[in-house]
Amino acid sequence: MSRQNPGTGGDQDSLPEPTVSRLPLYLRCLDRLYEAGSPSIDSVTLAKMAGVAAHNLRKDLAYLGNLGVRGSGYDVGPLREKITRILGADQEWKIVICGVGNLGTAFANYLSRSKERFVLDALFDNNVNRIGERVAGVTVSPIETLPEVISGNGSYLGIITTPPEVAFDISRRLVSSGVRSMLNFAPVHIDLGEGTMVRNVDVGLHLLMLSYHEML
Amino acid sequence: MSRQNPGTGGDQDSLPEPTVSRLPLYLRCLDRLYEAGSPSIDSVTLAKMAGVAAHNLRKDLAYLGNLGVRGSGYDVGPLREKITRILGADQEWKIVICGVGNLGTAFANYLSRSKERFVLDALFDNNVNRIGERVAGVTVSPIETLPEVISGNGSYLGIITTPPEVAFDISRRLVSSGVRSMLNFAPVHIDLGEGTMVRNVDVGLHLLMLSYHEML
Repeated sequence: MSRQNPGTGGDQDSLPEPTVSRLPLYLRCLDRLYEAGSPSIDSVTLAKMAGVAAHNLRKDLAYLGNLGVRGSGYDVGPLREKITRILGADQEWKIVICGVGNLGTAFANYLSRSKERFVLDALFDNNVNRIGERVAGVTVSPIETLPEVISGNGSYLGIITTPPEVAFDISRRLVSSGVRSMLNFAPVHIDLGEGTMVRNVDVGLHLLMLSYHEML
Repeated sequence: MSRQNPGTGGDQDSLPEPTVSRLPLYLRCLDRLYEAGSPSIDSVTLAKMAGVAAHNLRKDLAYLGNLGVRGSGYDVGPLREKITRILGADQEWKIVICGVGNLGTAFANYLSRSKERFVLDALFDNNVNRIGERVAGVTVSPIETLPEVISGNGSYLGIITTPPEVAFDISRRLVSSGVRSMLNFAPVHIDLGEGTMVRNVDVGLHLLMLSYHEML
């Protein structure tokens, strides 16, 4: 499951979390429309493309202010630019992956192929057999060197793909090194409190949501 | 990002999707409390353990009906049993993974170590070098054999960890073989419409939600 902690670290000016979780979906669709040269899109079609309910889309986009709605449609270019800016997708983000097993390797390869502005910057592991190895064009470093390796300029986001036993320790090390926002794929719930953002993504929780729907 | 399609395939008697997404978190916590022998838990403590807002927890549990609240707390045993039953976690689910690259291998290993009632049942790939290989105790089968291999009794859930180009085709094959609910980890949005449930989990969308929070 993927979630944010609604109870901690909240900014009063921030958008509602369900809206934040849908904006990236709209951006993906708007990117496609922009590439296809579509000048405008109506809310029902965009909602269908994004796989969300039209009333949610309209509510979400209303939060973003005056978006130049003409007739029943949105202007693709300005809306795409606005969401891009809100999500910080107009700047480069350096990604640090801790744990270069199958999952970490999969994400490293994904990022190296991605067109988005997430750049694989560093890989860490504590397995001596992996250290020094090149994965997706990046050399695996020992976890102890985390503070030095990520001390450069830039905005960092972390991905934790370690075994669950060490995930919390790794999350603390990331924060000590200045990485405040991270995805945790280890099957353990991490909450580092105010000023940090950990999105816990747990395949077991996703499967429980599927089984719920199978039970209906 | 992980999401369900709120606009399609909805059952009028089903719980709201945000509630469904939080129930597995409560179950994880209740499992721990049950193992620790705790007889009851108050809503504020349980919400904190689960990393959700207390008002959301109270709203969610109110949907589940009379849960034997005593004073300000919930009885751990009955609440755990109720959520277990609602989520279908009291029965066995057979998991079929399509695509045995790094991501598929990671999930296969995760499932083989998991204590939950999700049993790795079959692995499929179209790479001749992988077919016949044993991963997490299960032999990788050619994707063409999907209908025969999963024709047995039982409740199946699918996991798609193929390249994006073939993910939609694979999702259709799963449905043809009787698998209606699946997680899709390929970076492409799949919606198969009524009677099916595809949860699209996209690491790129999760990263966009992190960068949003870094921008605040």
